[in-house]
Amino acid sequence: MMRTAICPGSFDPVTYGHLDIFKRASKLFDRVIVLVSINPDKHPCFTPEERMEMIREVTAEIPNIEVDCYAGLLSSYAQQHEAAAIVKGLRAMSDFEYEFQMALTNKKLYPYAETVFLTTSMYNMYLSSSLVRQIAMLGGDLSGLVPRCLHERVYRKFRREEDAGDEH
Amino acid sequence: MMRTAICPGSFDPVTYGHLDIFKRASKLFDRVIVLVSINPDKHPCFTPEERMEMIREVTAEIPNIEVDCYAGLLSSYAQQHEAAAIVKGLRAMSDFEYEFQMALTNKKLYPYAETVFLTTSMYNMYLSSSLVRQIAMLGGDLSGLVPRCLHERVYRKFRREEDAGDEH
Amino acid sequence: MMRTAICPGSFDPVTYGHLDIFKRASKLFDRVIVLVSINPDKHPCFTPEERMEMIREVTAEIPNIEVDCYAGLLSSYAQQHEAAAIVKGLRAMSDFEYEFQMALTNKKLYPYAETVFLTTSMYNMYLSSSLVRQIAMLGGDLSGLVPRCLHERVYRKFRREEDAGDEH
Amino acid sequence: MMRTAICPGSFDPVTYGHLDIFKRASKLFDRVIVLVSINPDKHPCFTPEERMEMIREVTAEIPNIEVDCYAGLLSSYAQQHEAAAIVKGLRAMSDFEYEFQMALTNKKLYPYAETVFLTTSMYNMYLSSSLVRQIAMLGGDLSGLVPRCLHERVYRKFRREEDAGDEH
Amino acid sequence: MMRTAICPGSFDPVTYGHLDIFKRASKLFDRVIVLVSINPDKHPCFTPEERMEMIREVTAEIPNIEVDCYAGLLSSYAQQHEAAAIVKGLRAMSDFEYEFQMALTNKKLYPYAETVFLTTSMYNMYLSSSLVRQIAMLGGDLSGLVPRCLHERVYRKFRREEDAGDEH
Amino acid sequence: MMRTAICPGSFDPVTYGHLDIFKRASKLFDRVIVLVSINPDKHPCFTPEERMEMIREVTAEIPNIEVDCYAGLLSSYAQQHEAAAIVKGLRAMSDFEYEFQMALTNKKLYPYAETVFLTTSMYNMYLSSSLVRQIAMLGGDLSGLVPRCLHERVYRKFRREEDAGDEH
Repeated sequence: MMRTAICPGSFDPVTYGHLDIFKRASKLFDRVIVLVSINPDKHPCFTPEERMEMIREVTAEIPNIEVDCYAGLLSSYAQQHEAAAIVKGLRAMSDFEYEFQMALTNKKLYPYAETVFLTTSMYNMYLSSSLVRQIAMLGGDLSGLVPRCLHERVYRKFRREEDAGDEH
Repeated sequence: MMRTAICPGSFDPVTYGHLDIFKRASKLFDRVIVLVSINPDKHPCFTPEERMEMIREVTAEIPNIEVDCYAGLLSSYAQQHEAAAIVKGLRAMSDFEYEFQMALTNKKLYPYAETVFLTTSMYNMYLSSSLVRQIAMLGGDLSGLVPRCLHERVYRKFRREEDAGDEH
Repeated sequence: MMRTAICPGSFDPVTYGHLDIFKRASKLFDRVIVLVSINPDKHPCFTPEERMEMIREVTAEIPNIEVDCYAGLLSSYAQQHEAAAIVKGLRAMSDFEYEFQMALTNKKLYPYAETVFLTTSMYNMYLSSSLVRQIAMLGGDLSGLVPRCLHERVYRKFRREEDAGDEH
Repeated sequence: MMRTAICPGSFDPVTYGHLDIFKRASKLFDRVIVLVSINPDKHPCFTPEERMEMIREVTAEIPNIEVDCYAGLLSSYAQQHEAAAIVKGLRAMSDFEYEFQMALTNKKLYPYAETVFLTTSMYNMYLSSSLVRQIAMLGGDLSGLVPRCLHERVYRKFRREEDAGDEH
Repeated sequence: MMRTAICPGSFDPVTYGHLDIFKRASKLFDRVIVLVSINPDKHPCFTPEERMEMIREVTAEIPNIEVDCYAGLLSSYAQQHEAAAIVKGLRAMSDFEYEFQMALTNKKLYPYAETVFLTTSMYNMYLSSSLVRQIAMLGGDLSGLVPRCLHERVYRKFRREEDAGDEH
Repeated sequence: MMRTAICPGSFDPVTYGHLDIFKRASKLFDRVIVLVSINPDKHPCFTPEERMEMIREVTAEIPNIEVDCYAGLLSSYAQQHEAAAIVKGLRAMSDFEYEFQMALTNKKLYPYAETVFLTTSMYNMYLSSSLVRQIAMLGGDLSGLVPRCLHERVYRKFRREEDAGDEH
């Protein structure tokens, strides 16, 4: 029996913490779709295309991972792709209640997909995209936070934003 | 690729919350071993044999579930059975940090098994074996907490304990 | 002795979880005022009038409930209405610390009203107005989240917003 | 309409934190029963009679408070006394999940009583009977923790225990 | 050996809770720098100059306290000033995980400064700048929240904002 | 000005997490006393002498660390040694509320010592003495948990206990 899992998130940008979860999921399920969620109300730094491209680059060597993006209800996407699991990384307790609420809601909207929580390694436990953005904005060192091949792209994004900001 | 998952716990006694997790795990993995942990330091109400028998009875209709018991390190059992996953139900935040610690420890001792956290349905969210024991001891109603076929056995255990207590 | 309780909130929109709290409060106190708080800094989806109308509709059959709105300090409203209690629903831990802070502050500003926390039923535990808005915006199913008589109004609000958004 | 509330607890011994909750409850409800729970599995320092006597002494001036003790299910006691509310003090988050579980269980066993959570004042926020026992055992100062009229009794209990311990 | 500690924060405005932490830090370290952080993404009510002036006024009598402001990475400032410690007040659990993340990040970026968490007194436990702003905006009483010498300045700021708002 | 800090704990046995906290404290304070607390109610695996000896061995190369043990109130010990600080490692949220309570209590009993919370590195975040005992008891690998020079002693303790257990 083939089982598909979805790893949804905003990945703005993808970090070593996300990558660790993708790798773990790829061992538990036959096919893993990393799904960049598009939320028109939030204002991400990176476009969906940039985010998908960065994820494709850092997951290139994992054969059973695909990358996609979606703007609607996660449960509808799960249904269309007959997913058996929605995989989320649990880093810390503050994530917990929100993720619980979403897991119960998704189960109600599409009962055939189970939400599966994985933990990341201790090194990545307190790592988040917003921390990465904050450090990048202030010119701090990104090593250990984001794969090296993405550093230049992340710094460039914030330099460009600053330039744009100066023109206001 | 066949994947085996282990659902470890003391199950003293098994509740509807545990049963819900077993069912969810049985859809995600090809083979699920419900593992009754034997901890010589704790003093369970039910013997390992009683606990295994009750689990076998309530999981009889799920074909890919087996029941076993073990006294050593969970990571060693996972290694012997080439488990891909250790499945735990996360009910509430108070479980969270202990489960995190155990997940990190098991990953360190045997890196090939991933700890996978599932959530139970809202009905079972605040249900625990210790609540069941407390209510049974005071003669309260067990419906909705423990499958009906086990009620008599659970009540009897506590009546017997009281009788034994009277003889002191 | 007649005792008045206030149930304050933004109710944007009212959910089954709120309604459950109103019903519980109406059994504990002689008179219950559901108070729609008007916060000029927040940007609610529904106007205070719409929110009050929806609450009036779903509480119509509970005789000792009134609906009002207020823009100032809750403690001043409590003083003016000689309230004995401020009733809040506690769903989950993330609510807890903020509610504690507000309870201590309100007690300091008006010591005669006690903040009283009630829990909602398990079905509504993870239900919130923001979840309702998110699902409505994406066209998901609202049954079990919001009383049926309000569905059309909630969907319409988000369709209208989208239309308005298109005109930008 | 007369409403009865129950304040259950082990009160081993009663602290200023408990007393604060009793006073708040006595303003919200017409009749308040402080209920010393007798749990044969726990080993309290003070006998139920000692605990009831101490509570009676410190609540003597509050006319609508009664003191009782009970060994069975709280929900059965609530039913026998037609209680409208079970009152619990919420001090900190670690209390929260256990109290939630008990509130949902009691609601299931006897739906006519609502569990009502009150907060204590900041002074008593981190005060517990176990802290009192720990300080008393080491001969520390109990002022601000336990009403003065009980100090001698609390110290004496621990001296007696030590003497008893010496005789082993 | 002389040791310098940094107390970073937005202090928008400074409260009795912050002042309590400054005093405790001044007894543990030889030199304490209260550092107003300038975050271009946030929109504080008070300018950095106003915030520094208010802190200087309320810490005037503590000889080993200095006040400064900074817009870059805290770890860089700590390095430039050879700080041995970064001092943070821990009020409640909701602060905890974010502060942990920042402590680990700062340790990684500059390993010679230790993050040191102090607790404030019970009176200030649930006090925050945002609560102060909310009460001031609604014209509530600030005594016990902010030193008296700052009251007029805080009220004036919000009146001015309202006037500005009226002109829109 | 010379400042003394106390690092209290049961250290049953000392772990890499404790050692990390001792090292951090030794850089912040002129003199650090690691204080083995003797609690007659608890039943530690190692005697106070064994625990002190193990701590002395692993802190031998840190010049400003001393090791002591004490059976009374921590605040009295702090007063006798004119300590400026009581240092505690905060690993995770579950420690938090208990430590808060103790910090407030110690401040009340002896106001001149500040409780100072330090965080351990990510590697040690989920490491505890009870986890070490559990793994040692089941014959698991202690590397990364306890300094190598203590392994044999820890294993031996549990073997001896088992032998003793057999004789019952």
